[in-house]
Amino acid sequence: MAILLTHADVKSAIDMAGAIEAMEAGFAEEAAGFTTLPQRINMKAGKGWLRVGPVAMERSGWMGFKAMNLTAGKGVRYQVHLYAIETGELLAIMDAQHLTTLRTGATSAVATKRLARHGTAEVALLGAGPEAAAQMAAMVALGIVKRARVFSPTPAKREALAASFAADGVNITAVDNPETMVREADIVLAAVKSSSVALHGEWLQPGAHVNSVGTARPDQRECDVACFTRSARIIVDTYEGVFGEAGDAVAARDAIDPQRVAELSALVGGAVPGRQAEHEITMFKSVGTGLQDIGLAAAIYANARTHGLGTDLGEFPYLKAN
Amino acid sequence: MAILLTHADVKSAIDMAGAIEAMEAGFAEEAAGFTTLPQRINMKAGKGWLRVGPVAMERSGWMGFKAMNLTAGKGVRYQVHLYAIETGELLAIMDAQHLTTLRTGATSAVATKRLARHGTAEVALLGAGPEAAAQMAAMVALGIVKRARVFSPTPAKREALAASFAADGVNITAVDNPETMVREADIVLAAVKSSSVALHGEWLQPGAHVNSVGTARPDQRECDVACFTRSARIIVDTYEGVFGEAGDAVAARDAIDPQRVAELSALVGGAVPGRQAEHEITMFKSVGTGLQDIGLAAAIYANARTHGLGTDLGEFPYLKAN
Repeated sequence: MAILLTHADVKSAIDMAGAIEAMEAGFAEEAAGFTTLPQRINMKAGKGWLRVGPVAMERSGWMGFKAMNLTAGKGVRYQVHLYAIETGELLAIMDAQHLTTLRTGATSAVATKRLARHGTAEVALLGAGPEAAAQMAAMVALGIVKRARVFSPTPAKREALAASFAADGVNITAVDNPETMVREADIVLAAVKSSSVALHGEWLQPGAHVNSVGTARPDQRECDVACFTRSARIIVDTYEGVFGEAGDAVAARDAIDPQRVAELSALVGGAVPGRQAEHEITMFKSVGTGLQDIGLAAAIYANARTHGLGTDLGEFPYLKAN
Repeated sequence: MAILLTHADVKSAIDMAGAIEAMEAGFAEEAAGFTTLPQRINMKAGKGWLRVGPVAMERSGWMGFKAMNLTAGKGVRYQVHLYAIETGELLAIMDAQHLTTLRTGATSAVATKRLARHGTAEVALLGAGPEAAAQMAAMVALGIVKRARVFSPTPAKREALAASFAADGVNITAVDNPETMVREADIVLAAVKSSSVALHGEWLQPGAHVNSVGTARPDQRECDVACFTRSARIIVDTYEGVFGEAGDAVAARDAIDPQRVAELSALVGGAVPGRQAEHEITMFKSVGTGLQDIGLAAAIYANARTHGLGTDLGEFPYLKAN
């Protein structure tokens, strides 16, 4: 039996703590060699594109695909389909807008646990959109936020973000100077879609950890080259994604010592160590991977079934026996 | 607004005549250069696979993808998602088992209209599964069947196929000798999944036309090499599909004069002529293309909306404005 999970269903099915747990499990499964992630297809159509990519997680038994389509002047739509590998049954068709934002935040938490200095932290947030909010929410869920500030060029946007956290009892100050905030931060969160640099490496204090998730196109530059060259360790969600799609990482590539770069699955699986010295600057750079989508979809599905969420679609698609 | 169309909805939304019309339009659009067909992804998972492939039809304004998954010992499931290119809106999620069978039959009709001799025909059918039935139904829909016979190695299966057509008022005789039936046929339909040869080229009479749709794997051999070498014209749905996936075509490749081979879109668009002489043997060879799926899905969707079929899924997926 397949169920349909709408945007509202997905939002009520899981919280950030559950998402972090799912991302821990997903990257551990990748580290253990049980995941299959073929290169996704990106097809142009009209004034936009349709992108599809399947993923298999052989240990936990899930497979599926994400379909994402963008239309200029309209917007973007995401859906994820989750199947059981053993039976081939379609289990859920779910809206993946919230899932995409949530898994990006949760994955930064997985990296931060291993890369940031221990203890509570001064947190600086660049950006005020849904992705920025999810980055901050992930740090709140880890219980490591001592003080939090947010900068976005538009005052109304940064204040709205602060207000939305205040409504949940979390105190974040909207500030008008990103440099001061970053210079005083232990953890810097960047979720900015911009062709100009938002985070300058010279602002980073020794011992800082950066999560950078805003850049997904060749023309975008969230981080300058110094962010990369000052980092003792650069953890990427995938080599292929970050150095293929993130304009800032591509621009810095020749300046980066490859010995300092590793994938998140290697960090989670223990093949590479986490932070090794108090003064090191560390960086997690993410553009997203289908593993996050299917891993989180599985957790959402399990919760949805437990709580009776979603609409029953019956046996869909029809099984043609062989 | 997206609608869900189940197997039953799809079956009631369109008939063979409507499907033939949709395939005519789809291959004409391909011939005119308005279609995009990226290579699909085929991911192994467990004891089976999941295959996804997107398609865009820029002239008619449709895009979408098919997701097909096979699990050994269980069966195969198909679904198609149809979107409007202009708005990016998801229009329908539909079961694609019947769609897949129907579009394969309908496409053979498109080829047959241009390749078979004019007038009514003696038709010989090899195979008795749903694909075989659709091949015969397509010839019936064209109104060209003078006499029809079917062979399948299992008497019960060939008799069941004949009985199912008899229930619709179409007379088909189940026979125990494929050679005699083929030697007397003007049109030979082959829909056999087998690693041994089902159709021997030496059986074909001058002027015969063959539709061969059963072979989709490298180990399968529906047609022997003589079928290909005796054909004055071999029309394929796609070069890449037929000479990449159909074992019989791959095995015959070196023996085939490339000048005799063309794609169906070229035939439909008029870039290559149809039958040129009464005595020529002609062949249409098909493994399937995503264009058929999206082209037929669009026709099914239009009919479903006209007749109020399907289940309303609301605005799914959620639009995130950009």
